Amino acid sequence: MEYYSRQMQTLMEELGKLPGIGQKTAGRLAYHLMNQPEAAVESLARALTEARKNVRFCRSCCTLTDQEVCPICASQKRDHSQIMVVENPRDLAAYERTGKYNGVYHVLHGVISPALGIGPSDIRLKELMQRLQSDEVKEVIIATGSTLEGETTAMYIYQLIRPTGILTSRIASGVPVGGDLEYIDEITLYRALEGRRAL
Amino acid sequence: MEYYSRQMQTLMEELGKLPGIGQKTAGRLAYHLMNQPEAAVESLARALTEARKNVRFCRSCCTLTDQEVCPICASQKRDHSQIMVVENPRDLAAYERTGKYNGVYHVLHGVISPALGIGPSDIRLKELMQRLQSDEVKEVIIATGSTLEGETTAMYIYQLIRPTGILTSRIASGVPVGGDLEYIDEITLYRALEGRRAL
Repeated sequence: MEYYSRQMQTLMEELGKLPGIGQKTAGRLAYHLMNQPEAAVESLARALTEARKNVRFCRSCCTLTDQEVCPICASQKRDHSQIMVVENPRDLAAYERTGKYNGVYHVLHGVISPALGIGPSDIRLKELMQRLQSDEVKEVIIATGSTLEGETTAMYIYQLIRPTGILTSRIASGVPVGGDLEYIDEITLYRALEGRRAL
Repeated sequence: MEYYSRQMQTLMEELGKLPGIGQKTAGRLAYHLMNQPEAAVESLARALTEARKNVRFCRSCCTLTDQEVCPICASQKRDHSQIMVVENPRDLAAYERTGKYNGVYHVLHGVISPALGIGPSDIRLKELMQRLQSDEVKEVIIATGSTLEGETTAMYIYQLIRPTGILTSRIASGVPVGGDLEYIDEITLYRALEGRRAL
């Protein structure tokens, strides 16, 4: 027995394919959408199609963009001698929001994860190594996450870059600003101690 | 400064309009979608457009359907003398899943909520009262939620129906099956006591 119309069912199934959207949420979203003006739903559908059609990887840093080269890579105001390696465009956006980084990026689109069968060739490492052949690059800042996979990937990249003699750094790991020590795990506390700096 | 392409930004804004989808989730979903095959994204976009275009309210019970009259209202196998009043099509689907109800439904599309400025004329009550003018209806089962708004709506409907002499009932409120008494709030425990039945 179908409780909803076929189109509702199809929409719920499609929405349910999205990560983190279960059957119940899909139902709630579908119901919400049916109560929106037709134009609003059209506009979401159009945004989906347009984005998927036009968005591609930046030829230089591999982030998602609608141009051949993304605005950051194309900018003359950015320091092209510094490359920050991030896992995905959301991490790039997070660093951009700090307003404190003026170099360029390289987006890996993933991390090495033997558990998930993701090897070095599954992320944009080849593209990074190609960029390092230019004399311009003076430093590679590895800003993958502080997770097991992020650390593994950081070490792997470091080993790859070492022979080139290019300075390679890793963002600091420690107590987050505003973090109360008593709630922070032992490994972070140990890292914060190890990474202490003279005042 | 734009960190993403304009289309990505638009998509994230559109996704962020959905209930329960914040800025971060919208970013994650947009990124996920950009990594899906174009056909998969097209198929979601099509499901949205098609559903919104074709889905309408059942002329009889007001649930969402793609026909003039929904399959339940159109079925000769259902008992059309019993109408269960529910808040929305998801609650209808929940009762259908029990497989234990053979009557028909009436979908209010909301509950009376003075706090949110939702009055009796904002939900599908007029349509319910019109249905009751047929001699066929013998019982109205009010199955709005056990919330303040659900109870208010139930009482309001009961007052409306009383003059017609049609039997009006309310689904039972009590300890959920599998519920451990110690974790259940006092009001539910009191309701369960009040609603006790002889064995």
